[in-house]
Amino acid sequence: MPVTINCDMGESFGLWRIGDDAGLMPFIDIANVACGFHASDFNHMRITVQLAKAHGVRVGAHPSLPDLQGFGRREMKIGREEMANALIYQIGALAGFLRAEGVELNHIKPHGSLFGMAARQEEIAHAICDAADIFQVPVLGMTGTLHETVYPARGHRMIAEFYGDLDYRPDGSLIVTREHDAKDPDEMAKRCLRAITEGKGIATDGSFFPTRCETICIHSDTPNAVDIARAVRAVLQTLV
Amino acid sequence: MPVTINCDMGESFGLWRIGDDAGLMPFIDIANVACGFHASDFNHMRITVQLAKAHGVRVGAHPSLPDLQGFGRREMKIGREEMANALIYQIGALAGFLRAEGVELNHIKPHGSLFGMAARQEEIAHAICDAADIFQVPVLGMTGTLHETVYPARGHRMIAEFYGDLDYRPDGSLIVTREHDAKDPDEMAKRCLRAITEGKGIATDGSFFPTRCETICIHSDTPNAVDIARAVRAVLQTLV
Amino acid sequence: MPVTINCDMGESFGLWRIGDDAGLMPFIDIANVACGFHASDFNHMRITVQLAKAHGVRVGAHPSLPDLQGFGRREMKIGREEMANALIYQIGALAGFLRAEGVELNHIKPHGSLFGMAARQEEIAHAICDAADIFQVPVLGMTGTLHETVYPARGHRMIAEFYGDLDYRPDGSLIVTREHDAKDPDEMAKRCLRAITEGKGIATDGSFFPTRCETICIHSDTPNAVDIARAVRAVLQTLV
Amino acid sequence: MPVTINCDMGESFGLWRIGDDAGLMPFIDIANVACGFHASDFNHMRITVQLAKAHGVRVGAHPSLPDLQGFGRREMKIGREEMANALIYQIGALAGFLRAEGVELNHIKPHGSLFGMAARQEEIAHAICDAADIFQVPVLGMTGTLHETVYPARGHRMIAEFYGDLDYRPDGSLIVTREHDAKDPDEMAKRCLRAITEGKGIATDGSFFPTRCETICIHSDTPNAVDIARAVRAVLQTLV
Repeated sequence: MPVTINCDMGESFGLWRIGDDAGLMPFIDIANVACGFHASDFNHMRITVQLAKAHGVRVGAHPSLPDLQGFGRREMKIGREEMANALIYQIGALAGFLRAEGVELNHIKPHGSLFGMAARQEEIAHAICDAADIFQVPVLGMTGTLHETVYPARGHRMIAEFYGDLDYRPDGSLIVTREHDAKDPDEMAKRCLRAITEGKGIATDGSFFPTRCETICIHSDTPNAVDIARAVRAVLQTLV
Repeated sequence: MPVTINCDMGESFGLWRIGDDAGLMPFIDIANVACGFHASDFNHMRITVQLAKAHGVRVGAHPSLPDLQGFGRREMKIGREEMANALIYQIGALAGFLRAEGVELNHIKPHGSLFGMAARQEEIAHAICDAADIFQVPVLGMTGTLHETVYPARGHRMIAEFYGDLDYRPDGSLIVTREHDAKDPDEMAKRCLRAITEGKGIATDGSFFPTRCETICIHSDTPNAVDIARAVRAVLQTLV
Repeated sequence: MPVTINCDMGESFGLWRIGDDAGLMPFIDIANVACGFHASDFNHMRITVQLAKAHGVRVGAHPSLPDLQGFGRREMKIGREEMANALIYQIGALAGFLRAEGVELNHIKPHGSLFGMAARQEEIAHAICDAADIFQVPVLGMTGTLHETVYPARGHRMIAEFYGDLDYRPDGSLIVTREHDAKDPDEMAKRCLRAITEGKGIATDGSFFPTRCETICIHSDTPNAVDIARAVRAVLQTLV
Repeated sequence: MPVTINCDMGESFGLWRIGDDAGLMPFIDIANVACGFHASDFNHMRITVQLAKAHGVRVGAHPSLPDLQGFGRREMKIGREEMANALIYQIGALAGFLRAEGVELNHIKPHGSLFGMAARQEEIAHAICDAADIFQVPVLGMTGTLHETVYPARGHRMIAEFYGDLDYRPDGSLIVTREHDAKDPDEMAKRCLRAITEGKGIATDGSFFPTRCETICIHSDTPNAVDIARAVRAVLQTLV
């Protein structure tokens, strides 16, 4: 099974724009579409699903903690049941637009702090499974975290992600910033290739950590996201 | 086909409570569940769907203009496409909880000012049909308004509603207030009976207007909603 | 200086009501008015300030984390600068209504999880001081916490609070629940009296912890808040 | 008294950016700072006030209808008292940041649809005066509308605005779009000069309408706002 590129999309809100979604679509396989809790709204969700469909890009839900002003990048104390309910609401809303456009829901990818919380807090990982139980789709996640233990134990496939535009700590954990910096596209493509072929990621101190990569994530709000996507896409094509 | 009682439900939000949903459920047939735009949130929606299911009450979506602080009872200038998207988002979100509980979506009933706007603005009536096209369920509406002309013309069944706890103007239009007053249950039951058997409603000036009644609406935020529902239910049972 | 009773007020939102503010006003000295982030809105803030003024009750700001759906009772990771800005916004908004009614700002009392975070996180305690620097009023706080060390060190008077409707752990820390339970008014009044005259609080296990009490807090959303306030007021009058 | 340039600013929200505020500041005299209801948040308001102060630009409040997702460019049915309360909340919040930075509130300028509603609905024009009564500052407004009759009648100075980046109808009314188009800077500067020196505006059909211009407005979300501001500033300097 070939490695795919996934991208967080539809993260504009009202009059505000973030991410060159149209520019990125030709280079990606999977769009994680924001569901209105950290970004997007009913108009942007509709447009993004239509855009993905036009490019033959599969669509997954990108649900978040309820925190628009903080873009879902601010951790919050929340229980399993409440989090599961928040997920069902968001994924259901996206499913409405998918139904409108005749597109299948492909996967779930928790956004931002929720992704990190699910990696470390068992209750949150279970909340994600509670939602996956209902929509019956795989979940994108990270190796070496609770994603990898909880999701499969609950009967859900975890698609292992490697981040193509973020840095990692020596212990393999991801450095998530509230605003993302531009990255060197060639360096990022090289890191992705190493992750796929050697199962190794490089940390900020130059050390390596073991990893696994079935899909590469690029954030649409990384300033040069299109350049990174193009470079990573080119490298992936050498593998086919 | 017997006349039903429908009730707007799940209109609590966060810690705030409105409406004695549990008290009303035994007396009603259909619950219109708020979808988070004028009232409710992911927790209350989940609980309300579970409560309705436990009582064998059918569940429809009760979507609104985006206006939590105004409880969707404040008209707003909004275009057809944007309104349709707002509806798909809300109905989709509710459909997520219905899927979680194994319950079918029964109908759509626009809330508050949106209901009134659809009665008078063709574009808004069409926006509701745009959403109904996707979810393929009937729409609750009022005779003598655009509901009655636009919905069927677009291929959607309109279930004719009579209001069991609101007053009407001599021209048969509804007087919608931001907060509802208590009403005399027996008087309200009598009005409902007259609407069903004689096809007549009574206006504030004592005059009658022609009407049609397939379902009777009682608002859960009317102070004595349970008493009204009980009285109307008793009258309906004399008709069977 | 006599011990006062303070109460969190103006916590209704839109059509939703919480707390019998009018019933409580005659029994209290100080109202902590919600500022729209965990509860209240521009209409309820106006009304609450007017109501307090009519009863000769002093008004302080009751700012919160930005979390309406969670009623500010959900902890959130937030930095000092961002928190300070959120406080200035809220206190400024309340100050607008105070100016409209010709009333002085009396104090600041952080709400819910923010109150607890300021007790344990130095950065958050400083954020509160950053806001107090601007508005130049005392801060309500709890003995045995960072409130007591950080506020005075930054030149702000801390008015020591004892909670008249919540339980305490043996270490003197407060048990904050998302929804409050009714409490026995006489028992609560007795605890308040003991806190004032003996400097001791009673914990859930029956043990005592040292405390200090300049003002007693009663939550308006505690079910029998008026009864508790009346009982505590009666006890306070025996001290004069 | 020389003609000034005013600009709507601080309209970013959370991670989303709109408007080159830093680029515009050198060319303007007055900033209308968004107050969180149509745009901005506590962080952006703080930064914008600091930026204006650093450039010696005066700061006014730019309050709106409560409609973040619609950017306040969607009319809404709202009563005088409720609107006045919404204004006091927003202006008060901005006043908090002004106090923090030691800057005076200079004026009030209603935003978007609220500006248009105040031009045509007497109750809304009065709501704006109700807020101006409290903060005692002039209001920016448009000649030939209720602004010009109601504000002075209530004792508030109206500073007459001419729009440097929008088109006008033959009757002198403004064409407000939800998203603004780029405009030719020289043409816009010429129109401003004509408005100032000849008291005439040009409409979309080439006809002229009478106008008055004490301040020229440029929207920071107009794509080439900086170029327009530079061109208008250059023309204004020829008048001194």
